[in-house]
Amino acid sequence: MNKLSRRAAVERMALGGVGLLLNNEAAAQNPPTTPKAFAGQHQPKPLPFDSTKLKGISEKLIRSHWENNYSGAVRALNAVEQRLAAMLNDKDLPPYIYGDVKREELVRTGSVVLHEQYFANLGGDGKAGGDVLAAIKQSWGSYEQWEAEFKKTGNALGGGSGWVIFAHNWHTGELHNYWSWDHMHNAPFSRPLLALDMYEHAYQIDWESGGFAGLS
Amino acid sequence: MNKLSRRAAVERMALGGVGLLLNNEAAAQNPPTTPKAFAGQHQPKPLPFDSTKLKGISEKLIRSHWENNYSGAVRALNAVEQRLAAMLNDKDLPPYIYGDVKREELVRTGSVVLHEQYFANLGGDGKAGGDVLAAIKQSWGSYEQWEAEFKKTGNALGGGSGWVIFAHNWHTGELHNYWSWDHMHNAPFSRPLLALDMYEHAYQIDWESGGFAGLS
Amino acid sequence: MNKLSRRAAVERMALGGVGLLLNNEAAAQNPPTTPKAFAGQHQPKPLPFDSTKLKGISEKLIRSHWENNYSGAVRALNAVEQRLAAMLNDKDLPPYIYGDVKREELVRTGSVVLHEQYFANLGGDGKAGGDVLAAIKQSWGSYEQWEAEFKKTGNALGGGSGWVIFAHNWHTGELHNYWSWDHMHNAPFSRPLLALDMYEHAYQIDWESGGFAGLS
Amino acid sequence: MNKLSRRAAVERMALGGVGLLLNNEAAAQNPPTTPKAFAGQHQPKPLPFDSTKLKGISEKLIRSHWENNYSGAVRALNAVEQRLAAMLNDKDLPPYIYGDVKREELVRTGSVVLHEQYFANLGGDGKAGGDVLAAIKQSWGSYEQWEAEFKKTGNALGGGSGWVIFAHNWHTGELHNYWSWDHMHNAPFSRPLLALDMYEHAYQIDWESGGFAGLS
Repeated sequence: MNKLSRRAAVERMALGGVGLLLNNEAAAQNPPTTPKAFAGQHQPKPLPFDSTKLKGISEKLIRSHWENNYSGAVRALNAVEQRLAAMLNDKDLPPYIYGDVKREELVRTGSVVLHEQYFANLGGDGKAGGDVLAAIKQSWGSYEQWEAEFKKTGNALGGGSGWVIFAHNWHTGELHNYWSWDHMHNAPFSRPLLALDMYEHAYQIDWESGGFAGLS
Repeated sequence: MNKLSRRAAVERMALGGVGLLLNNEAAAQNPPTTPKAFAGQHQPKPLPFDSTKLKGISEKLIRSHWENNYSGAVRALNAVEQRLAAMLNDKDLPPYIYGDVKREELVRTGSVVLHEQYFANLGGDGKAGGDVLAAIKQSWGSYEQWEAEFKKTGNALGGGSGWVIFAHNWHTGELHNYWSWDHMHNAPFSRPLLALDMYEHAYQIDWESGGFAGLS
Repeated sequence: MNKLSRRAAVERMALGGVGLLLNNEAAAQNPPTTPKAFAGQHQPKPLPFDSTKLKGISEKLIRSHWENNYSGAVRALNAVEQRLAAMLNDKDLPPYIYGDVKREELVRTGSVVLHEQYFANLGGDGKAGGDVLAAIKQSWGSYEQWEAEFKKTGNALGGGSGWVIFAHNWHTGELHNYWSWDHMHNAPFSRPLLALDMYEHAYQIDWESGGFAGLS
Repeated sequence: MNKLSRRAAVERMALGGVGLLLNNEAAAQNPPTTPKAFAGQHQPKPLPFDSTKLKGISEKLIRSHWENNYSGAVRALNAVEQRLAAMLNDKDLPPYIYGDVKREELVRTGSVVLHEQYFANLGGDGKAGGDVLAAIKQSWGSYEQWEAEFKKTGNALGGGSGWVIFAHNWHTGELHNYWSWDHMHNAPFSRPLLALDMYEHAYQIDWESGGFAGLS
């Protein structure tokens, strides 16, 4: 493919594909609010629960988690977006340097979204919705089998980094417990329903042993 | 956190968080079809265009791409799911070995979904939808600025692996061109609108020079 | 390249290249002791210092680190090697499943070697060798400049995973502070001289704040 | 650990550990030539063989591989080093942005070293050294078993990215075929003896099918 035809292909893809996709009903349900791509105006969301009353996780740990890890990711994402805006206009910048900072955008975006999901899960009211339970049973055979897989995937990541993400894949319609090595590891177009933070900051301060003893 | 309280926390998260999320309207628009999690019954989708008539990409390349890379990923995903089902019941299996194969599930899921998106984009009808164009202008200032960033991100990945994924992040409502190092690199809950395959199988056969000369 | 010629190329590379390299002087200084590739007989090395007397790191943290993270990696490496031996003889196993467990071999090998280097550094006698200091000055201009880069690289990894590895690259002859995202990230043929563990298990238990406050 | 004690720990590690390690005999065999860490003066090495006479790989492919992928990595490494030097003195730069470019340094260093090893292997004279053959037999039982594992590891990476690296781990004394997902994936302090490039630029131009048909 010569440069000319590649340019044509990109433009055609851009125009054709995008046009089709944003016109469908699902997108209409959730219209883009279209903030600027490089605005750097993200704000941390407050914890959706009383951090002194969380069962099984100390206030100290959850506040450190929110302030240092989650809010730190929000602040970093803002700084990254503003840097990208400046770098995009630097004609001498090699594309791979731009790509390096785009990677940071992905790291921080993943961290922000997954942490917000994690905190939302912690603040749940403890009532199981019928829809999900039914879907779990259809997918894994039983709630216990789903839970066993969720925990086994979590134990696979113990002592290091990552997430277990129980997600609804909107492309395939399936439910899966996705293994995630770091904030960037996600299945495309999959809605996290339950995100378990396996980074050590999520549990280690509270542990007598100081090590990961496993989910049980 | 001792084991007992951790167990409680996981169960509470599972029940509470999931219940809330699947009951909302957006999910109702797109109900899980709930195939078995480990069924291994994925089928490759045919190319949504006449492969002899694609402008800028030879039939040979696109057919090889579909058969070897995409369909190979579908076949591998099926094999992986069936293996996971068997491994889940092996009580002697260390969790990290299970996790290794869960990583393969993520690799192949990403490859399947992103390739289907890529082929769908190639088969677009070339008409730009007004919604997307308006959203691009709001997010990047102009179509040209968006295109410049999309291409710069692609050039950052040339000669190696990965994707550029123009996506609508349903969690934040934003549009971004995401840098993706491999099939596993995605922003959470983000709908790919335009996926550009930067793996070398996507273009190299057609190139005189045999190397990546950049998007222009 | 057809299959036949590719086979020939691999065999030629195997015979030619290897022959040249293992016959040189440097290799003769450090002869392979040639244990079996899949023996699974690694033993954890004891801490090379009195864990009650380490300045700045509690005994509890260092013992947890040695027992849970380091020794856990040794045990896992042994289990992985034995599994690989069995899998290699399974003719029905897809190569990518074998590759998944080979990845685990690399994860655990990196963890074992880097932890042994880290503990060796902690047990150092505090006397700076003249050779290294001279080399640092030649490479960075001053000890302070080297230290500033080492710390900046560490701070880049705070709150997540990874290592900073001050290493002597034997291929290029250079000294570098390498950024390492996880146990698998290393420069080829580079001898770690100072490995700083940035995984949260390396410091978090001891911290009042429970978060990463940076190297200073 | 408070900041003060952490500073002390880092300094102690730096001085103590490094002093011990660079004074040993092996290092004396291979003295650091101590170029500046950020000099950006790397030069591509010419192919160590006549590119028109390589059996099984076309001149076009090998020249493209040398010029676009290998020499491109050398040029990028130089540019990255010069940028790091400037960034290190920018007090307002967040450490994670510095880390992003340090990652690029690792990517390019890996690519340069592994490609030089790869080309050196291709230029081998085809004579198997007795030492290596004997070591392979001790480690794998037979040459055929080693070759089967090397190829299976390569097939695991087909159609994507990465390397198979037959290496001598100088820390453990062992020989292993290491699975490598990208240029950054290496076992610490391991000398590559045979590096097989599994990136698609290494073989795809020459293939009728345009896809990866496997090593056999």
